[in-house]
Formats: sequence, C-alpha cells, structure tokens
Amino acid sequence: MRTEKKIKLVVPITSKEFQEEHKNAMKALGRGIEVIGVKRGSPSIESFYDTAFSVPATVLKVEEAEKEGFKAVVLDCFDDPGLHAAREKVDILVVGPGQASMLMAMALGDKFSIITITDTMISSFQHNAYTLGIERKLASVRAIGIPVLELSKRVNEVKERLFEESVKAIKEDGASVIILGCTGMLGIAKELYDRLKKEGYDVPVIDPLIAAISLAEALINMGVKHSRITYRKPPEKERSY
Amino acid sequence: MRTEKKIKLVVPITSKEFQEEHKNAMKALGRGIEVIGVKRGSPSIESFYDTAFSVPATVLKVEEAEKEGFKAVVLDCFDDPGLHAAREKVDILVVGPGQASMLMAMALGDKFSIITITDTMISSFQHNAYTLGIERKLASVRAIGIPVLELSKRVNEVKERLFEESVKAIKEDGASVIILGCTGMLGIAKELYDRLKKEGYDVPVIDPLIAAISLAEALINMGVKHSRITYRKPPEKERSY
Amino acid sequence: MRTEKKIKLVVPITSKEFQEEHKNAMKALGRGIEVIGVKRGSPSIESFYDTAFSVPATVLKVEEAEKEGFKAVVLDCFDDPGLHAAREKVDILVVGPGQASMLMAMALGDKFSIITITDTMISSFQHNAYTLGIERKLASVRAIGIPVLELSKRVNEVKERLFEESVKAIKEDGASVIILGCTGMLGIAKELYDRLKKEGYDVPVIDPLIAAISLAEALINMGVKHSRITYRKPPEKERSY
Amino acid sequence: MRTEKKIKLVVPITSKEFQEEHKNAMKALGRGIEVIGVKRGSPSIESFYDTAFSVPATVLKVEEAEKEGFKAVVLDCFDDPGLHAAREKVDILVVGPGQASMLMAMALGDKFSIITITDTMISSFQHNAYTLGIERKLASVRAIGIPVLELSKRVNEVKERLFEESVKAIKEDGASVIILGCTGMLGIAKELYDRLKKEGYDVPVIDPLIAAISLAEALINMGVKHSRITYRKPPEKERSY
Amino acid sequence: MRTEKKIKLVVPITSKEFQEEHKNAMKALGRGIEVIGVKRGSPSIESFYDTAFSVPATVLKVEEAEKEGFKAVVLDCFDDPGLHAAREKVDILVVGPGQASMLMAMALGDKFSIITITDTMISSFQHNAYTLGIERKLASVRAIGIPVLELSKRVNEVKERLFEESVKAIKEDGASVIILGCTGMLGIAKELYDRLKKEGYDVPVIDPLIAAISLAEALINMGVKHSRITYRKPPEKERSY
Amino acid sequence: MRTEKKIKLVVPITSKEFQEEHKNAMKALGRGIEVIGVKRGSPSIESFYDTAFSVPATVLKVEEAEKEGFKAVVLDCFDDPGLHAAREKVDILVVGPGQASMLMAMALGDKFSIITITDTMISSFQHNAYTLGIERKLASVRAIGIPVLELSKRVNEVKERLFEESVKAIKEDGASVIILGCTGMLGIAKELYDRLKKEGYDVPVIDPLIAAISLAEALINMGVKHSRITYRKPPEKERSY
Repeated sequence: MRTEKKIKLVVPITSKEFQEEHKNAMKALGRGIEVIGVKRGSPSIESFYDTAFSVPATVLKVEEAEKEGFKAVVLDCFDDPGLHAAREKVDILVVGPGQASMLMAMALGDKFSIITITDTMISSFQHNAYTLGIERKLASVRAIGIPVLELSKRVNEVKERLFEESVKAIKEDGASVIILGCTGMLGIAKELYDRLKKEGYDVPVIDPLIAAISLAEALINMGVKHSRITYRKPPEKERSY
Repeated sequence: MRTEKKIKLVVPITSKEFQEEHKNAMKALGRGIEVIGVKRGSPSIESFYDTAFSVPATVLKVEEAEKEGFKAVVLDCFDDPGLHAAREKVDILVVGPGQASMLMAMALGDKFSIITITDTMISSFQHNAYTLGIERKLASVRAIGIPVLELSKRVNEVKERLFEESVKAIKEDGASVIILGCTGMLGIAKELYDRLKKEGYDVPVIDPLIAAISLAEALINMGVKHSRITYRKPPEKERSY
Repeated sequence: MRTEKKIKLVVPITSKEFQEEHKNAMKALGRGIEVIGVKRGSPSIESFYDTAFSVPATVLKVEEAEKEGFKAVVLDCFDDPGLHAAREKVDILVVGPGQASMLMAMALGDKFSIITITDTMISSFQHNAYTLGIERKLASVRAIGIPVLELSKRVNEVKERLFEESVKAIKEDGASVIILGCTGMLGIAKELYDRLKKEGYDVPVIDPLIAAISLAEALINMGVKHSRITYRKPPEKERSY
Repeated sequence: MRTEKKIKLVVPITSKEFQEEHKNAMKALGRGIEVIGVKRGSPSIESFYDTAFSVPATVLKVEEAEKEGFKAVVLDCFDDPGLHAAREKVDILVVGPGQASMLMAMALGDKFSIITITDTMISSFQHNAYTLGIERKLASVRAIGIPVLELSKRVNEVKERLFEESVKAIKEDGASVIILGCTGMLGIAKELYDRLKKEGYDVPVIDPLIAAISLAEALINMGVKHSRITYRKPPEKERSY
Repeated sequence: MRTEKKIKLVVPITSKEFQEEHKNAMKALGRGIEVIGVKRGSPSIESFYDTAFSVPATVLKVEEAEKEGFKAVVLDCFDDPGLHAAREKVDILVVGPGQASMLMAMALGDKFSIITITDTMISSFQHNAYTLGIERKLASVRAIGIPVLELSKRVNEVKERLFEESVKAIKEDGASVIILGCTGMLGIAKELYDRLKKEGYDVPVIDPLIAAISLAEALINMGVKHSRITYRKPPEKERSY
Repeated sequence: MRTEKKIKLVVPITSKEFQEEHKNAMKALGRGIEVIGVKRGSPSIESFYDTAFSVPATVLKVEEAEKEGFKAVVLDCFDDPGLHAAREKVDILVVGPGQASMLMAMALGDKFSIITITDTMISSFQHNAYTLGIERKLASVRAIGIPVLELSKRVNEVKERLFEESVKAIKEDGASVIILGCTGMLGIAKELYDRLKKEGYDVPVIDPLIAAISLAEALINMGVKHSRITYRKPPEKERSY
C-alpha cells in the first residue's frame, strides 16, 4: 500500500531556517511528505505563550491542506499546537508528535520520559499527557537547557545532554522508554539508542517527528478519522485574525 | 481589607453586546472591577477552534492590565482562554472561571457537573478538568444547546434547560454540585438553586464569573502569586500577530 | 517505504477454518503478510481459560518467526495472548490487536468502548486496558453474545448486534470511539462506521487486526523495538510443554 | 464588599496560650473575625488520636456559631477536625485550612507539598488529600520535627527547618507550591517565600489559616453553601458526650 | 490453629439492644469472641456526625482491650469509627468491617457495591474507600432507607430492599461483588446470595462483621501488626474527654 | 472453626526440590494443607515467559483439586500463575500469594513495596497490582538478584539483600509495608521484621505463602466464592495441551 503524497507537514514556527531544514529532511526521507511553514506566530515554540501565538496560523495551514486534498496533516512541533482546534475544523487526519510519541512509547514499554529542550516546556507537555489520559505512564519530563533554534548548531552538546538526562530518567524516574521532546531533534534518536544500549540501558528512543509521520500513515492505512463526538464541528461565525 | 480597583476583567470575545452587558454587570456588582474586551478573535467561544483565535488578543490584554497596575486579571470565559500562557508572561494573578468554579465546587461537595451552552464545548471543559488533575471529581459536562450570544435573548428557555440538565446531572451522573458552564449565564445561579432546592435537590449552583472574581479577591488577600516552577517565564523573542 | 514480507501473523487458535480464512484475508489485503496457526491450544479464545492453553504454542510460533527473519509478529486475537511473554523472549516486534486498537483509539478521540463476542471475554479485556495503564479511557466492554467461530456464519446478526451495542456504548457509556473486540470481525468495520454515521454517530470504528498490522508497520518504519527494561530476557532453563 | 463580623474561628485545641495568640492575631488582622476555643479535647493536634478527642467539642462550637448568626466557621487546625461532621449538622459554611490550602495551591501551580510539624501528622494529611480526590496533586507531606506548642518558642529553628524541607520538596518531590501544614505557623509564609525566591525557587507559600479565611470570605461573597447531597442532615437522636 | 479468646469486638454505639444482640450472635458463632459496648456516644452510627461522637469512647475501649491482652480488636460498625486513631495508640491489631469487606471483595471479583442503611452514610463510606486508595474498585454505595436500629424489626423489608438495590448495583453500576454496608445486617448475607444466584446474579455477598473477624483471625495467624510508619505513636499529653 | 484438610497447595513449578521443601514446610505448619506439584512447565517462575509455560498444568491441577473435594486452592508462586483462568473454570476458591499479600498489606499500612528475586519479575508483579486496581498503593518492586532455586542455598545473602532493599523501599520509595515477593522466601519474614524494627523501621513484613493460606482460610470461613460476573464459566470445547 502506497502512502506517498498523502501527508502534509505543517511547521508551526516562523523560523525560515527551521522550515528549510525540515523541507530538506522530508525530501531526504523519501516518504512523499510536503512541507509548509507558517508566516505569523513565534519563531520557535518554547512555552505556552509561544504556542498561543502560533496556533491560529497553524490551524489555517491545516485547513489549507484539507482543501488541497491531503489525507493527513502532521504538526511539526512536539507541543502539538492547535491539534484539537484543527481536528474540530477539518475532516482529514491531524497528528501531533507529542501525542504520537506517547502512544508509540506505550506500545513498547511501561513508563516513558520526555527529554526536551528547555524547562519552559515541561508544564505544557505534562498537560498533553494529562489530556491524553495517561499521567500514570509519564515518568518525567526533563530538559537539556538548549533552545530549539540552537539545536542544530550545538549538536554535540545536545547529544551529550540527551544521554545524561536519559540515564537520569531511567535510573531516577523509572522510565523504560525515552522520547525526544522536540521535532528539532530529528535524526539523532538512533545514535542515542546505541549509546544507551552500550551502557546497559536497552530502551527504545522515539524520534517524535518520525513517530507522528508513522502514526499518520498507519491511520491512513486503517481508513479512519477522528471522532466527531470528541471533536464536534465549530459553529460558523466571523472570526478575525 | 479593601480589594476595590484591583481586578480587571478581560472579555476574550469580540461581541460588543456581550462586552457592554458585562461592563454594566460589573458596575452593578460594585466590587470595583474594570472591564476590557478584545477587538480580534472570535465573537463568542464555543469550541477549541474559537479559543485558538481568541487567545492571542486575550493574552495581550492581560499584559496590558499588568502594565496598568492591576493586581489580578479575571478571564471572562468559562474555557479559561490563554490562562496558562498569560500566567507565564505576567507577574500578576490570572484567574479563569473554569478552574475557579471547579475549585470552589470541591470546597462544597463531592462530584460536580458543568452545565454549559452547546456540546461543542464539552471536550474542552473536560481537558480543563484533566489538566487541573481532578478528572475523578467531574461527574459530567452537559449542554443546553443554546449558543452564548442567544443566552440573554432566550432567558426563560435557558433557565428551563438548565434546570432539566441539572436534575439529570444529579440523578444520572452523581453530581452533588452544579456549575454553570458559561460566564454569559451571569446572575441566574440563585434562581436555579432555589428551584432545585424546592424540588428536593439542595445543591450549590456556582456562577462561574462570581467564583472567579471571588477567587481572585481571595488570592489577592492571601498575597500570593502563581508558581514560577509551573509557569516559567517565556524566553524573549520577536513574535508576530 | 516498502514493508512487504516483514510481518508474520500468528493465529493463536487451532481452528483450521479460522486459520484458512485469515490466510485468504491476508492474501487479499496485499500487504505481504504471512500467516501461521498453532496446532495445540484452544480452537477459539473466549476466556482467560482459553488463553491459558493457547499461550505456549503461540509464543513458540513467535520465536519461530524471529528465527525465520521476520521483523514483527502480529498476534491474531484481540486478547493479545502471550504478548508480554513473547516480547521477553524475542528481539523482534510483537504487536497485539487489543493494545494496538486501544492506542489507535486514543489517537482519534476521548473514551472508547470495545464490542466483543461473548461476555466471557470482558474481564480479560479490562485487564489488558489496566496493564496498559489506561483504565480511564475505557468507557466499557460490551458483548454481542455470538461465539468466535460463529461470526462468519451469522454475519447479518453480528452486524445488527454490533450496531445495537455500539449505539448503547456511545449513548449510555460515553464512548466516542468504537473498537471491534475480536479479530474474527475482520472486514466489517467500514459498514458499521457508515451506519453509525448515518444515524448521527460519526465515530471511528477500529478493525483490530488492521490496527495491529498498521501499528506493526509504523513501528518497523520507526526502527524501534520494545524496551528491555520492561521486558527483560527470561533466564535460560529447561521448560517442558 | 465587607465581610466583617461574619466569620468565627473555632480553635479545636485546648491550649489556652494558643487560643490567646490566635485571638490577638485575628484582632491584628482586622478582618472582623471572632475567636472561640474548645475546653475539652487535646491540648494540640498532632495525630489521628488527637483529632479523635478534639472533634466532639469542636463540632459543638460550630453549632453554637450557627446559632449566634455567623455566616461561616473556620476551623483553626490544618487537620480540618470535624469538617465533614460539622457540615452535615449546620447550614452555615464550614471551612478547614487543610482543604482550603490545597484548593488554593491548585489555583497557583501543579503539584504541592505540605510542610508540617511532626511526622505523626503525615498520614492524616494524606487522607485529607485522598478524600478531596486530589492524591495526584500532592507531591509530599514533610515534617520539621517540632511540635505545635513549641512553634512560637523556637521560631528561628522553625524557619530554618521549613526552608530546608521546602527545598527538598521542590527538588526531590516535584512540588511547585509549598503549603505550611499547621495553623500555628501563622505569619511566617511571606518570609519563607522571600527566602525561597532569593535562592531561585519562586513558588507560592500558603499560610493555611489565611487561606481558610480567604476561602470562607469568597464563599460568603458567592452566596453558596455546601451540598446537601454530599452532606445530608444527620438523623435526630440523643447523643452523649 | 486455634484463634479462640483472642479477639474482642468493640461495639461503638450505645444502643443496649444492639450490644445485646451482638453478644448473643458472637456466642452463637462460637469463635471465642468477647464483646464490649461503649456507654457514651451515639445510639447508632448513621452519619459523619454520629461517628464524631462515637470515636472517643470507642478508641478508649480498644486501649482497654489491649491492656486485657487481646490480640486484636474488631470494630462493630461498617464506618470503622476510630480505626486510624486506635491503630496509632495501640500495638494490637485493629480491624474495621468497612476496610475488611472491601479488601475481601477485591479477592473475589472486580468492582463492588456497598448496600447500606440510609443515604446519610454514603459520603462516609466513599471516604473510607478513598483513604484505602481503591476508589476505582467502588462501583457505588446504595441505601435501603432503613435506620440501623430498625433493621432487626423490619427484617423482611430489609431483605427485599437489599435484593432490589443489589440488582441495581449489578445491572446499573457494574458491581460484581455485593457488600452489606452495616454490621447490623448480620446473618442475612447467605439468603441474599442464594436469591441473587437464583435470579441469575452469581455474585458473592459479604457480611461485613464476619469479614472483619475473618480478616482479624488471618492477620493474627500471619503474626503481623500494622505499620508504625503509617500509624506513628501519638505524643503523650493530657487529653480531656 | 476448624479449616484443616480443606486447602490444597498447587506448586506451579516443576522443581522437585522446591516441591519437596514445600511439602515438608506445609507438614511443619500443621494447618492440614496438602501439596501437589506440576510435572510440566517451568522449573521455576522468573518471567512472563516462565509463567506462560506453567499455567496450563497449574490450572489442570486446580481442576483436579476441585474434583477431590478441596474447598480452596492456594497457588504456590507470587506471580499467581493461572489465577484468573482457574477461577473461571472451578467453583472452589483459588487464592494467589501476590494478590493475597497486596490485600493484607493494605490492611496494615499505606503503601507497600515488593522485594522479589530477580528484576525479570518486576513487570509481571506490576501487572498484578494494576489488574487488582491498586497501582496507587504500590510504592515499588525491587529485586535482590538471586534466582528462586538458589534462595535456600544462599540464605544469608538472601537475608542481607532483603534487608538492604527493604530499607531502600522505605526510605526512597515511601513504602510502609514490605512484601516478600517469592513464596520460596518462606519462613524468613519474622527475622527481617525484627531486624528492620531494630533499625528503626517498624513495618510489617508479609510472607506471601502464609498470607495466601490465611486469606484462603478466611474466605472459607466467610462461606464465599469468587464472582461469576467477573469470572464467567468458559464455554465447553476441546482444548489440546
């Protein structure tokens, strides 16, 4: 079953550099995923506050993708900005890396920890777990203290800090699965997995963007859409933005 | 202890009529509360989607209130739009009627039900209870099927439907406290309480806007502010809106 | 990305007819899935007791699949017989339709109900939800009162009963997603979805075998395996069976 | 809105000194609160056992306050002695510092810790959180090892120990709000808050008696009373004490 | 193993008639249980308020039993009055019928319902389940509307109402075990079980006093006592009663 | 009340030595318990995988015991192998040491930790707590790193390691009750309790086999059996083993 040309990746942050990087990454991935970024909002998402400003443009991009005929949109941020609002509005699938990673983690082990960028994101990711109803599975959210837009510039430091926090999550918090808590961490999960395994911690490391794309493909293959009881159509009205 | 002139009410919906009504109501209330409404966003909040478009302007109004020297902002919508984002950004108190009502309900009885406008709001209010960590206390969210902006035009129908759904919440869902799930229902809690009591259901009926104002006054009197571990300061950056 | 020839479906019940049906179904599906059935155990799984007798042979078939070079095994029973034991023993992915369906349901809506064959399975499916840590998401398990091996012979009755119980699950139990609770119900989810939607209940209906296959494909694409902290290697010893 | 002369503070311990201190403190507070202490029971409450002996006289004092025309009673002990029994019996508001503090903490941050006097109180405070339905919000209960009636004599030591345990609660237990777990700790919350903030922990510190008084005022302003479904009237009968 | 003369039953209500009935019942039971009743407190326990007045005398009777050399005390009321206070004070076992019944129910099936006397007891029994940490196992608490001291006079009505509410608990609330919620219902569990079974509901019916006695015997046989971390010794002080 | 000759202990592991030891131990215990061991399955149970192979023969032994007229079967392994399957099939009581220990622990204190043999058992014991619905009571599962069949050969090391892990469970995990997590640890609970108490940790230490036997005796004395709603009769069919 071919799933090419069916998924659109919506980048909810205005950073041109980040958008460009992910266009290239999707091309390299070869799973036929188109990429579009927002032009208004926050340059990066690192707080509830950033998400607040990123959501409207992001949701409008999802609506656009529906009109263009895509079967699914993947949001390119671990905070799943606008996930619930978008699901209400459109009839196509909308998948967020935060939710997708947590569900995939549950398919692989007991409790998971999320290792993210800065501690300004911790509360928001906890809320995502709570609204998904799985607070009992979340061992911890930990931060490496490096902002989104510096991830690709400080790669070695990022890898070192991810390793350190992963080991703490396993030993101190009881995690048996590690989730990378930022889609800007694309492409480094395998190396972290290998290093953890070598050190005696054979636990899956989940790349959130790959998890979201894979979940979107799976849901497309299943032929299902989100529940209209959970996500009812918003009433028509004139909204300004 | 006087708390006058300390609280600003931010109306997160663009409806001029609603804003005007609540300005008058606050004047009548005589607790010294100033009112400001947003100019961009949704005319009314009835879904995750409406909230998405209402949050940026709402959060900016909270920031404005902080600069004007208010001690607390009360959000004038049961969905608590922008509550977490605003708390991150400002150092003054921010109180939402949804959270405030649920906490007050817990001070009065075991489980509570929220009776709101339309079923398009149910999921969002459930999320609010989940992120507050009290899913076990929420008996149900029920809807009367009347939109926000028709509440004041269809008052008798509203009262009738609120009574009907309250009785169902008590008898079928196990509620022992009733919360009115829309700040547009201002001023009718007492009548509903009396009617329920007369019919044998002596349960508190919480007016969410009054609950939020009263909680804000209480927190001002306590001299406390929100936790900076839960709500960390968002990094400075250029955001567009 | 091609996932053909990577997944083996292990049928944990001895019914030749059921095994044959699912071989044909997998051929028709065209996703390159090979099928093998056990020769010892229960003819059908309809209780903890049936599962008890089906697990040893099932686990051995999973071990066989690993030796044959498969990347993943999908268990062909909603009760996920031997899921945890097999994951301990083998290094390839093992996916159960029960777990997979519940995780996919969580990606589509709030609470889900499982509509299964007979009430003798209810406790076991509840245990599966509890061990997955999502008791709060499970609205209910309901049964249509028709045994596994009669499903294909009483198709119209099955469809009618599934519709009836689904409506009750939605209206009485608060479900917003429906899961078919038996892999023997293969191929009828779409029709049930259409009928429910037509009657005003636009909720996803999950085919558990398709969910499991799709999850297995997703996990293969993600390049992950189960956690060795949750699933530690069983010590070597002489076991008799 | 003036709330003077509406609240009566019932001191449920027989210590004359403690009663006198709190009469003076209430006078100094200037919120018009009258104080009455019990004559039978325990000199201080430091265990389930103490509470057992304090409850009857405390409840009778609440009944007295109702007859005197007070709108609300605040219990002057963090263990909320007789809270549920009193609510059953009287029609006026009854507020306990334990419940009030926990609810206020939830309005300010995610998880809270209670720092109390001696470890003999830990189980009882946990029960209070469990019956309020918020076990998930309680990070920990910690004790400074100093009895109630020595608090005012060993002030510096008390402050030092509160600081030490608060830091541990934040760093080791995940607290983002601190609650002082004894009404005998009146008046020192602000200093602890300042010190914690200076050390990098900007978290609210809740004074339980002020929280209870403020909640009582809020509930009076809201015009609500406790639920008669949760708190049904006890049958009339001859009880001896 | 003989357990005779080891258990003392403390009746925490002042009703002479009830005390007499239970002395006779214990004699008839032939398990060597001595009975003592309190002289102060409530004639019957039907509310938090009754319990408040019954606890001090009850706890003192437990202390007496310890001095007399008993190995365990069983409290003769489903509300477990003074259970936690007594465990703090004494070094012998203290068992309450409420807790004992709930634990035994969990050994026999999934969820349980408690069928008690009047609705004035419902909240208190819920609190008992919450403090035991098993709110998820409690299907419901239902009341037959007949006070404690009329149970033995209206036996047929009691039996009829117990049957009716048990059926509702099973069919509407999802109970799979029934607990009789009053020790005054002694001796009728078997008949209710037989009737329910005959009507197609083969569920255990737990007699709370027998459950408590049997649990006490089991704990004596195990040679264990309660945890001194959960139940710390109350400080010595002069208490008045 | 005599309970002799009523209970059969089914040893679900094939180790002759273990079976012999427990026959002798039961004889020494003098509570009239007969012992039978399986001939097929695993020599010891140390993983989900071992349990998978042990269950069929174990369940058949329980069926045999029912035919022989026993009133209850106690499973002689902390993992409760086949507990649910056996309860479905037979009408006599079936008690597992894992469940029994956890329930008894709840009768003695707040949270408990299980100290078991090897870390390969941790997940399975967690599942047992989850299916019992008491995940909130489980402080931790810890392992001493010594396999079942070496327990009686390395007694001193076992005792030392149990002490070490118990102290960690109390101090680091918040346990207030200790459960020995293997029936092969028979007879050493008292010594561990004494040592812990001497070191300042006065917490009950539960011997799981004695807990199971005592619970079985209690349930026999209560005259109850498991719920046929939770455990429905498995349909008659030809199963092969």
